[in-house]
Amino acid sequence: MKLTSIPTFQEIEKVHERIKPYINQTPVLSSTAINEISGAEIYFKCENFQKIGAFKMRGAANAILALSEAERAKGVATHSSGNHAQAVALSAKNHGVPAYIVMPENAPSIKRAATAGYGAEIITCAPTLAARESTLDKVVARTGATFLHPYNNYDVIAGQATCAKELIEEVPNLEVIMAPIGGGGLMSGTAISTKALLPNAQIIGSEPKWADDAYRSFKSGRMQYNTRVDTIADGLRTNLGPLTFEIITKLVDDIITVSEEEIVAAMRIIWERMKIIIEPSCAVPFAALLQQKERFAGKKVGIIITGGNVDVNNLPF
Amino acid sequence: MKLTSIPTFQEIEKVHERIKPYINQTPVLSSTAINEISGAEIYFKCENFQKIGAFKMRGAANAILALSEAERAKGVATHSSGNHAQAVALSAKNHGVPAYIVMPENAPSIKRAATAGYGAEIITCAPTLAARESTLDKVVARTGATFLHPYNNYDVIAGQATCAKELIEEVPNLEVIMAPIGGGGLMSGTAISTKALLPNAQIIGSEPKWADDAYRSFKSGRMQYNTRVDTIADGLRTNLGPLTFEIITKLVDDIITVSEEEIVAAMRIIWERMKIIIEPSCAVPFAALLQQKERFAGKKVGIIITGGNVDVNNLPF
Repeated sequence: MKLTSIPTFQEIEKVHERIKPYINQTPVLSSTAINEISGAEIYFKCENFQKIGAFKMRGAANAILALSEAERAKGVATHSSGNHAQAVALSAKNHGVPAYIVMPENAPSIKRAATAGYGAEIITCAPTLAARESTLDKVVARTGATFLHPYNNYDVIAGQATCAKELIEEVPNLEVIMAPIGGGGLMSGTAISTKALLPNAQIIGSEPKWADDAYRSFKSGRMQYNTRVDTIADGLRTNLGPLTFEIITKLVDDIITVSEEEIVAAMRIIWERMKIIIEPSCAVPFAALLQQKERFAGKKVGIIITGGNVDVNNLPF
Repeated sequence: MKLTSIPTFQEIEKVHERIKPYINQTPVLSSTAINEISGAEIYFKCENFQKIGAFKMRGAANAILALSEAERAKGVATHSSGNHAQAVALSAKNHGVPAYIVMPENAPSIKRAATAGYGAEIITCAPTLAARESTLDKVVARTGATFLHPYNNYDVIAGQATCAKELIEEVPNLEVIMAPIGGGGLMSGTAISTKALLPNAQIIGSEPKWADDAYRSFKSGRMQYNTRVDTIADGLRTNLGPLTFEIITKLVDDIITVSEEEIVAAMRIIWERMKIIIEPSCAVPFAALLQQKERFAGKKVGIIITGGNVDVNNLPF
């Protein structure tokens, strides 16, 4: 049964129960050193320890469970060079559902291999959005598979919402919840869960300056688009969709943008001080906090660490 | 009050209570991917998340607490290029005790800076064991400080023993406990706690083939020494001391040695699949398990991940 409107928190609670067998309840970590550096009391929800190494597993797990038997028989399709591909491939495998993943020819080989390892059929295309979409259309026409959008999909948003729900249930009295914004699926789900559980908390999005479509959309009230896609935070290069734009505009309190240098510096602090492997995208909320230390000084802040799928042969330091 | 004989488990329980305010109870992590790769059910005790990034904090915290007031006033001294230096420096700072750390001139700058950051006085020497010892002697003569040996010290051993104690208390029914062996402080403490809490579990040490003094000492029953110090597992280059030799010979069931290639491969699997930053030394027990998969197949294995202080600008992959 698919969601056809903005998920309520009651719906998110049901979603959480049904995806639990397929996801990890990830740990929440904190660090004295990080708190000293930042001046805040930060709780990191570590989705880098999630199955497939990223929060995307939550949304994909739910989207597959929302399909009818007839839809499952025909399979699922998506285009992604990254974590959503692996999440769909593993979720499909968990239920014996065929998965067709369109990937650009320049996708990292580690992500291609991981996706194929879950038994998905990979269809390669040119590295443009147009080629991805037209290739996907052909796959759907050929197979009858259901397209699972990585974020502009209420079932995916409801799945991602379970991450902030777990964080808020584990750590009492958080005053600020921060997440990065790519397509906005995580931010939308985070905002819904936070508004329900912590109505007085600040909900803060964060974005690279080089991919600040959500920031400009939020400030102007009209959907804006990225004009470059070269930020190191490769998980955040996508634009909002209409569904995530609506939720973010309604529920998020502010969006902070950060430079590439701020992202790499924040990533390095987390690697060196917390000893966890995070993708550049995950460092964006912490970079935003460091940029505006006074604003968050002494506050109890929850930050969602989105994933850890990084090529250790190609690090920015 | 210092321990003057092999610590009993009752003494270790008391040590654990008194060091608790100064250490983290580190998380135990497991990974479906790692279990599939290894064929065992592995629980990693993550001392890379310990204060100063390594288990050495436990032993140092206890050794400082074991000093008399008069000894604390004169301070503590040690020679170390690594985690023990930081652990002694932070433990000394926690109690307002002066700390003097002899470091070889080629010590990694990140470790030197971290040690100085805790307020310790750093005395630089030539990078030989003879220079370290003679420099330390001079420091002790000048200051009256108490020398804290990194492992050949019962208070240090009792502190390190609290790590396996926490692991065994958190994960029921472990059948095998594995740790790496450098000077043998961690392995000695691990063996004492395991024998007390899990008398039927196998206690398995592991070492680089290029620094296999403990393996040869264990097999021959007489103390042997390393002839080279160039293993990538830089925390394991030291020789056993008489105290750790005695405990390891009595309590450990077996020691497995691994090649440099096995260490790097195991380290990479943990980085990529578990998303945690570990030092090469920590990968040694997991490399030993992978080398002898049949022996550990289906077994419930606890592995101590010893630390995460690695230079991210100088990785082996």
